[in-house]
Amino acid sequence: MSNPFFKNHGPLTISEIIQSLNINMDITYQDKEIHDIKDLFSSTENDITFFHSKKYKDVANKTKASLCMTTNALKAELPENCLALVVKNVLVSTSTITSLFYPNSINDNFDETAISINDTHFKDKVNFGKNVLIGSNVSIGNNCKIGHNTIIEKNVVIGDDCCIGSNTVIRNTVVKNKVKILDNCTIGKHGFGFFPIKDKNLRYPHIGIVLIEDNCEIGCGATIDRGSMSNTIIGKNTYLDNQIHIAHNVKIGENSIIAGQVGIAGSSTIGNNVKIGGQAGISGHLKIGNNVEIGGGSGVIRDIPDNTKVMGYPAKNIREFLRDNKWYIKQL
Amino acid sequence: MSNPFFKNHGPLTISEIIQSLNINMDITYQDKEIHDIKDLFSSTENDITFFHSKKYKDVANKTKASLCMTTNALKAELPENCLALVVKNVLVSTSTITSLFYPNSINDNFDETAISINDTHFKDKVNFGKNVLIGSNVSIGNNCKIGHNTIIEKNVVIGDDCCIGSNTVIRNTVVKNKVKILDNCTIGKHGFGFFPIKDKNLRYPHIGIVLIEDNCEIGCGATIDRGSMSNTIIGKNTYLDNQIHIAHNVKIGENSIIAGQVGIAGSSTIGNNVKIGGQAGISGHLKIGNNVEIGGGSGVIRDIPDNTKVMGYPAKNIREFLRDNKWYIKQL
Amino acid sequence: MSNPFFKNHGPLTISEIIQSLNINMDITYQDKEIHDIKDLFSSTENDITFFHSKKYKDVANKTKASLCMTTNALKAELPENCLALVVKNVLVSTSTITSLFYPNSINDNFDETAISINDTHFKDKVNFGKNVLIGSNVSIGNNCKIGHNTIIEKNVVIGDDCCIGSNTVIRNTVVKNKVKILDNCTIGKHGFGFFPIKDKNLRYPHIGIVLIEDNCEIGCGATIDRGSMSNTIIGKNTYLDNQIHIAHNVKIGENSIIAGQVGIAGSSTIGNNVKIGGQAGISGHLKIGNNVEIGGGSGVIRDIPDNTKVMGYPAKNIREFLRDNKWYIKQL
Repeated sequence: MSNPFFKNHGPLTISEIIQSLNINMDITYQDKEIHDIKDLFSSTENDITFFHSKKYKDVANKTKASLCMTTNALKAELPENCLALVVKNVLVSTSTITSLFYPNSINDNFDETAISINDTHFKDKVNFGKNVLIGSNVSIGNNCKIGHNTIIEKNVVIGDDCCIGSNTVIRNTVVKNKVKILDNCTIGKHGFGFFPIKDKNLRYPHIGIVLIEDNCEIGCGATIDRGSMSNTIIGKNTYLDNQIHIAHNVKIGENSIIAGQVGIAGSSTIGNNVKIGGQAGISGHLKIGNNVEIGGGSGVIRDIPDNTKVMGYPAKNIREFLRDNKWYIKQL
Repeated sequence: MSNPFFKNHGPLTISEIIQSLNINMDITYQDKEIHDIKDLFSSTENDITFFHSKKYKDVANKTKASLCMTTNALKAELPENCLALVVKNVLVSTSTITSLFYPNSINDNFDETAISINDTHFKDKVNFGKNVLIGSNVSIGNNCKIGHNTIIEKNVVIGDDCCIGSNTVIRNTVVKNKVKILDNCTIGKHGFGFFPIKDKNLRYPHIGIVLIEDNCEIGCGATIDRGSMSNTIIGKNTYLDNQIHIAHNVKIGENSIIAGQVGIAGSSTIGNNVKIGGQAGISGHLKIGNNVEIGGGSGVIRDIPDNTKVMGYPAKNIREFLRDNKWYIKQL
Repeated sequence: MSNPFFKNHGPLTISEIIQSLNINMDITYQDKEIHDIKDLFSSTENDITFFHSKKYKDVANKTKASLCMTTNALKAELPENCLALVVKNVLVSTSTITSLFYPNSINDNFDETAISINDTHFKDKVNFGKNVLIGSNVSIGNNCKIGHNTIIEKNVVIGDDCCIGSNTVIRNTVVKNKVKILDNCTIGKHGFGFFPIKDKNLRYPHIGIVLIEDNCEIGCGATIDRGSMSNTIIGKNTYLDNQIHIAHNVKIGENSIIAGQVGIAGSSTIGNNVKIGGQAGISGHLKIGNNVEIGGGSGVIRDIPDNTKVMGYPAKNIREFLRDNKWYIKQL
């Protein structure tokens, strides 16, 4: 992933990395510089990566990374070019090192760089309401509207012909063309991702963004969190109704329709032409295929193949759902 | 329906209408003027109407409209006074013609007419917070309060003794007397209604309003969408808790109590003295009777007769629900 | 409960109290002053209390209160020192008398005392955004940040090292140290508690507060209502995701994790180290133990003992839930 927003504070030397991880290790090339942290697949020889589950064995075998945080049990899977750094908790260590490269990606405090749009060059270009604020590192295309009290915080790219409503907050987000984002939304904050630690949880960095493709509509009161190590994506011409929550790393395809109060948990992927009824919930790390229809109120807890209609909690094939519940009609 | 807000840009001649629909037809009286678009029942001889489902056959037989968009299969049901315009997709054509009569009812961009309440005559009449904005075509009764950062956009009527909270946005809405609307609400935007078209959905006009009757309370974070061809209505002394979503055309009766996070999908009707538990969802186009009680978390997918208690997903009679689930108590 | 915020407008004489309740009674000591209204347990001889259910018989026997609103059926349970005031509806009468002592606890109209933070002494102490408002009776610790358009209404205490987001409204709340409250939240308004009365419901007073302990994080769009006769509490290091609704009097323990769109109804108690999945709902007046895990989408309608995993609607032991639904996997 090439992150357009968060400044990489690297390189770090191997020696600095080892010290940060409290590893006691004798290493040659301590002064070698590591430029970035990436996943097993994307890493180059200048990067550090992480390997925490057997599931990723096949990618680990071939990683090009020079360093890899991993466990004693997994380290044998790494190729010769990659030095294993054995740590107690791979994900916590990954968080630690990511924070060193991207220290600005952890906290989502309000953007102190935001100033009145009247004091920016956008004042002659954008059609805007009262009390609109713009942060640093923002670009806005032609023919855009921004409603009252809306805050475009730092690290936002907005394309042409977009309409942003009132009372909305956006940061760390790329919005393509002809997108509508309605009132009271919060888009681009970090996800609900942290390591639970007694008395003081540890937040891990979110270096991904939110990417909203052409012709989308985002309803009122939406919360769309940015990705942690990848991006959160809303595909072309996908429409979201009011009060929808999209967690970090979720990827939604094109031409999908998502009704009110739906929630999609972290890292799930939704296909193209998907219809999701009101109040449905989709668990994390699932794959919902193309042309899927999910009935209102459903709770989806497993992958759904292409072209399937499901309903229920847990969501099952709609034929089964209707058959199972046919009898209930006569009870009212 | 007589819409109080959206300006009718008619009349249109029959010739103009036929051209907009791309119909190739030889008609006398091409210069006859059509004044409005209405449903089959309300139309007069100066109106155009639409007829897209056999369900409405009986009303279609008696419509007074001079023109009717319909299909080849249905056109024989229309009376002699009514000229059938056969179109490929009746609802898309209805949308096209409605947009010609009411071009301002499609988009919900922020209200550029809104100015500081300090620059309006309301400044001596209303008790208001900081940064309150008022759009054009707004009237406010006696003894009202409007909280900080709240935006009363154009086309709003507020009665006497009303309290509006902070950070709330209201447009295209009639609020009667003694109503409380709390913080962070968005009321009166268009509904989630559009024709799904690959790569570029087509929004249809929403010429209805939101009507909130006397003594209602609307909780924080509510979204109440205005109607498309009819109004969205909250009946007298009905209370809504926080984070509730009411879709377009929904009609709720009097003295009803709706708990937090409930969602009611488009065009459903809820009776008087109805109690709905938290997080319940009600599908679209349903009729929920008077004195109905719906348990928290229920998913209602069919009509519910008067005086019935239901619970479950799908919602069934509460006796059945409890009987079916009695056993589960001993499993914990 | 000692309420830190709402001014007690007492004392009231016994005679004033009797008149307000429309009781026709011959009493000596009519001029005796009553200083406060408290529950049966906390009352002293200067207080009035209320007793409306046999459930509280054992506490009623020993109350120290001088006066008690109760029913004819229950009055014999009161000790000699306590004069029974027999009323038609104990809770309505309690509401009436509470309103006399705490007239400011009923309505949640916008805070007219709020002024720009630039006009307060906080301007040199707090790191704040544009358009921040501060009400009366507010204190803020060291090293705090407050985002754009946020309104700290009256009766708020914020500790050290706290970050409040943008567009958030807080009132009647104590926030301890190192707490993060994100954007678009509404915290501390009264709960959804009232007596349903035809054509004009009667709101009862909410004299409790919201208490948010050290190291908590509250996600975007949260609504957390203050307590009625006790407080709403979020325990230390508990994290709430986006769009969560916490009703009045709810008490959540320490180190708990609550995912997006969860709703917890009034007066329920949640233990320590509890995990609640997205969109789960918890009915009112329940007790959820320590180390409980509640699956996403669950509907909890009964108490859950310590160390239990539940899922489903109604929520049952997760073993049962999975067993019951195993078959469904092959149906997709």
